[in-house]
Amino acid sequence: MAGNDIEKLIKLVSKLPSLGTRSARRIVLHLLKKKESVMLPLIEALNEVSANIRTCEICGNFDTSSPCSVCSSAQRDDTILCVVQDVADLWAMERVSLFKGKYHVLGGVLSALEGVVPEDLNIEPLAKRISSGGIKELILALPATIDGQITSHYLSSRFKDSGVKITTLAQGIPMGAELDYMDEGTLQLALNSRKVL
Amino acid sequence: MAGNDIEKLIKLVSKLPSLGTRSARRIVLHLLKKKESVMLPLIEALNEVSANIRTCEICGNFDTSSPCSVCSSAQRDDTILCVVQDVADLWAMERVSLFKGKYHVLGGVLSALEGVVPEDLNIEPLAKRISSGGIKELILALPATIDGQITSHYLSSRFKDSGVKITTLAQGIPMGAELDYMDEGTLQLALNSRKVL
Repeated sequence: MAGNDIEKLIKLVSKLPSLGTRSARRIVLHLLKKKESVMLPLIEALNEVSANIRTCEICGNFDTSSPCSVCSSAQRDDTILCVVQDVADLWAMERVSLFKGKYHVLGGVLSALEGVVPEDLNIEPLAKRISSGGIKELILALPATIDGQITSHYLSSRFKDSGVKITTLAQGIPMGAELDYMDEGTLQLALNSRKVL
Repeated sequence: MAGNDIEKLIKLVSKLPSLGTRSARRIVLHLLKKKESVMLPLIEALNEVSANIRTCEICGNFDTSSPCSVCSSAQRDDTILCVVQDVADLWAMERVSLFKGKYHVLGGVLSALEGVVPEDLNIEPLAKRISSGGIKELILALPATIDGQITSHYLSSRFKDSGVKITTLAQGIPMGAELDYMDEGTLQLALNSRKVL
């Protein structure tokens, strides 16, 4: 149907997350139709990011500098460290712009099923950050899954003698949710952790 | 949160069809994580397509050559022309690989609402292709919308004296469809165009 180059591009685009062949075709056609206004700026932005992107040597965030803008910010609290699974979670926390401490990206969670052991994660650099002193609180903001919870427990037992206060995000009913639509686990959790008004 | 370059890339990606901010963020993170295996090949493919892509001077298809591979194919029937709204429709027809004639991309359909008049469409080149002779049948494969039908009627009345047989795609119940889920218009159409078994 279309040229080989176009087919190849469609195939590459279709393998990106949340896309399939049909949406990839639509996207590529859109790029072809708007070469000057969409395709060329996109290529330029991709080139810039690909040339400038660094993984922060301290926290694991992606940025155009290393240390990243969060780690090198003087406005942020060096004594609180928020431990997240992934850069996506770091960005999600930053979108709320409530947290003013710093981060540590684990790069995954422990998983018996997928064979992820502590050595596969970014835990040694975390231990070094903690032992080098200055950190007072470790917020474990890991996913509310079994693996996430196991990882939280592993980290909390590993660092329990470090003198650092270890906390996790509160769990319960999310804002705007109808009880009717909540799963039993969440309801049980919310009931067990109920608070006095 | 992330660097300015990354933010800019996310914004550009989020404006592509079928994407939003959330999926754009996921895609960009995926690109950042797999720079060597995903991002660089994607940039290369985009560069190749952007450098080599041509709009076919005969039919309006996108290809790396002009005339495109369909127009320059000796295996295809020069006497049948399939008129489509968009390159996407040409690609859809080619995926079925049943049609062995050639194409003409209109680049849209007439629309009173959006102010699309015949001069905005690729109709003059079509008239030239027809008057230069050799074409026996014009298959109008335009969308089954009001505007598509109006465009079909316009084309059929415009070329009715050219000696070319003018046909359109059959309309009715699509394959695998349940009658229960069909809209009234389609049912009425299918009933009116019923065939003897």
